[in-house]
Amino acid sequence: MHEWQAERDWPLLTQGLAGRLRNDCMAQWMEFVRHPFVRSVGDGTLAPEAFRNFLIQDYLYLIQYTRACALAVHKADTVTGMRHAAHLLSGILNTELSMHVAYCAGWGIDETALEQAEESLELLAYSRFILDRAQTGDLLDLLVTMAPCLIGYAELGARLHADPATKREGNPYWSWIALYGGAEYTELVEEGIHRLEKVGAACGAQARYPALVREFATSVRLETAFWATARSG
Amino acid sequence: MHEWQAERDWPLLTQGLAGRLRNDCMAQWMEFVRHPFVRSVGDGTLAPEAFRNFLIQDYLYLIQYTRACALAVHKADTVTGMRHAAHLLSGILNTELSMHVAYCAGWGIDETALEQAEESLELLAYSRFILDRAQTGDLLDLLVTMAPCLIGYAELGARLHADPATKREGNPYWSWIALYGGAEYTELVEEGIHRLEKVGAACGAQARYPALVREFATSVRLETAFWATARSG
Amino acid sequence: MHEWQAERDWPLLTQGLAGRLRNDCMAQWMEFVRHPFVRSVGDGTLAPEAFRNFLIQDYLYLIQYTRACALAVHKADTVTGMRHAAHLLSGILNTELSMHVAYCAGWGIDETALEQAEESLELLAYSRFILDRAQTGDLLDLLVTMAPCLIGYAELGARLHADPATKREGNPYWSWIALYGGAEYTELVEEGIHRLEKVGAACGAQARYPALVREFATSVRLETAFWATARSG
Amino acid sequence: MHEWQAERDWPLLTQGLAGRLRNDCMAQWMEFVRHPFVRSVGDGTLAPEAFRNFLIQDYLYLIQYTRACALAVHKADTVTGMRHAAHLLSGILNTELSMHVAYCAGWGIDETALEQAEESLELLAYSRFILDRAQTGDLLDLLVTMAPCLIGYAELGARLHADPATKREGNPYWSWIALYGGAEYTELVEEGIHRLEKVGAACGAQARYPALVREFATSVRLETAFWATARSG
Repeated sequence: MHEWQAERDWPLLTQGLAGRLRNDCMAQWMEFVRHPFVRSVGDGTLAPEAFRNFLIQDYLYLIQYTRACALAVHKADTVTGMRHAAHLLSGILNTELSMHVAYCAGWGIDETALEQAEESLELLAYSRFILDRAQTGDLLDLLVTMAPCLIGYAELGARLHADPATKREGNPYWSWIALYGGAEYTELVEEGIHRLEKVGAACGAQARYPALVREFATSVRLETAFWATARSG
Repeated sequence: MHEWQAERDWPLLTQGLAGRLRNDCMAQWMEFVRHPFVRSVGDGTLAPEAFRNFLIQDYLYLIQYTRACALAVHKADTVTGMRHAAHLLSGILNTELSMHVAYCAGWGIDETALEQAEESLELLAYSRFILDRAQTGDLLDLLVTMAPCLIGYAELGARLHADPATKREGNPYWSWIALYGGAEYTELVEEGIHRLEKVGAACGAQARYPALVREFATSVRLETAFWATARSG
Repeated sequence: MHEWQAERDWPLLTQGLAGRLRNDCMAQWMEFVRHPFVRSVGDGTLAPEAFRNFLIQDYLYLIQYTRACALAVHKADTVTGMRHAAHLLSGILNTELSMHVAYCAGWGIDETALEQAEESLELLAYSRFILDRAQTGDLLDLLVTMAPCLIGYAELGARLHADPATKREGNPYWSWIALYGGAEYTELVEEGIHRLEKVGAACGAQARYPALVREFATSVRLETAFWATARSG
Repeated sequence: MHEWQAERDWPLLTQGLAGRLRNDCMAQWMEFVRHPFVRSVGDGTLAPEAFRNFLIQDYLYLIQYTRACALAVHKADTVTGMRHAAHLLSGILNTELSMHVAYCAGWGIDETALEQAEESLELLAYSRFILDRAQTGDLLDLLVTMAPCLIGYAELGARLHADPATKREGNPYWSWIALYGGAEYTELVEEGIHRLEKVGAACGAQARYPALVREFATSVRLETAFWATARSG
């Protein structure tokens, strides 16, 4: 049994602009998708208290991510592009957030607790970095900065699905894993990668690559730091 | 038979923040809602060529208005507020724009013509003024600047419905009038007025009133100027 | 005696990104820099009343242009780039605006009149278009959209200087012409062109050219329309 | 000898909008201005390595703070307000940054090290939070969010000046203390407080107070967290 490998198991992740960015940050990328948090979710050993704290911060993060999607609508220069971003936006606001609230309820976190929680340092750093790049740069900067979150969760979902160490029966985190490794999320990510490729071509990604890889790398670093919100106490 | 009067026929338009703003720009407001364009639509005498040009510019305006709605999502500070703005946004992108395209087709304007049309001076002035206030100010500035468009079309729809001079049978513009005087649009406007009131209270509308009435007045002036896009040739 | 020609008389205007943009909008560009307004300033036949109205709108325009310079500071990604934009910003706020006020006083327009004047449709369209592109796009979009104003005034200054039809003695507009054809403004423009070239290379101007030329063309069109603020009454 | 007290020693800090905000976050505020970092600077016991790391992050922070000042120019609605913000902006870009570079050189940090340093989590969280509030809200939100940095450094400077435990002779940090407790910085802060008061009155600070105190409190929390950048290794 071999470890999951993007080149073989999901080649799309290694191609085009997204693939180049991922490849050029490989060490940092691996720290993100193979983080101890991910492993402990896979084998079910993560402390529930830590997971609860993560879920709360993840809820607050989703709200900020939605605000970045709103800027993607604002910055799109065709009606088709606007619709693409608005579809993502509605999906989060009308479906994902409610699912997240329901999922949190299953872990004993009620909606009031979600709404009153304080944003952690990791969340503030990551979400506001994205929003600042989204405002300061153009649509390409925005999509590049949002990409690690979109792609990374799909990759770690696929990795956990493929990993024999992943526990399915009796793992309280299995439904979480199932979500990010599932067909629906996978399709969303593939659409996002194609959109990035298209916007990249129109917006001069090749000439701008040094700046793009810098913002992608910072985003991966902050996504990795975000795992630390899964802490007890 | 009396002329339509907001005080009697739709008192909501005269109350609260929206009512105060409308009242304090009354002369300009009347120029907007009782413009010769409106009269000529009502009695069916508007030149079709002029109406076609107006429709094209109105389509391009809708796209920019949607971008302002996206900023309203970005600037809302509660999930409920974000959902309210996102609902408006989806409504325009997924329903109104398609209806507008179909309606234009009925007037012999195909989608390519809509997409390739050049933005007029009036459209650029009005839409970019809104977008600049939306970016520069907070959510209240944004809603105040967008309000004349939202409310004014409902008022002129109601006026045309009530006006005995309005021709229904054989008036090529009747379906346009029916839309803005209809129950669905009326409800949308009432929601928007309530939202403005609520945001106004939370955001200090009373203390900020001198600045708010200035931006509202500019918006009414630009909305009035926009009727001139209904020109032949 | 030949007409002034950029190719021969100021080749920098025909080179690089700025030159390509200018060349690809040549018909519209010529309407801008050889507009009847420019000719009537050159031979001194412009109605003083019209010029006064233009000066008032130009003052209000400068304020909005300064706001765009502030966004150029915000969007620059190096300290050197920030300083370049901040230098322009300070120059306008601390020097040009005061000179403009003094110049207007010489034409009988006092500062209160400047501050209380209403923004014209042409001013709103042009300035808010620039500000919207500045917010929506990146630094390159911003510089491309601001370029027609910067470069065009230098070119028309040079044209008027070179034109035998230009009246110097007894022309009430000579000091205005002298400003834009002068060494100081020329140097500012050359710096701006070099900056555009550099930012263009880093930001993928070549791949993005179709979008850039569209926003440049709109900007030239709006700059041309702005001459109409020189109207009597 | 009594401890320094704002009420007695700098009453301006306890008055008006700034005073109310500071007072309503008092516990967090005290953690910020009487942080162990501040004490160890005062008695000269801070590890030089930790101070060097802090200086590097502080340099990177200044750059982002300047970008927020640029947005203050963009959002000001009078020429006087624009000049106030532009003055701050130029002061940082043309004077403070160079002083900071020279000061760092004295601590053995060369300019290349400053430019190549990676932004810390604390810096990203704090600076991008400010920039996001600056873009999302209006000028008042921006000034409120920037206020803890402006006022807090002056207060801790005054506290260290007044504290008998502060070592002056032979304290390698004395020049740093002298700067923030000095007359020039004090004057800057007083101007800033008056400006906040004025903008607060015009922008409805009273009605908006619940939202303002929330963003002020987050800013104080993030400023406090920023002291942790003074770490060795």
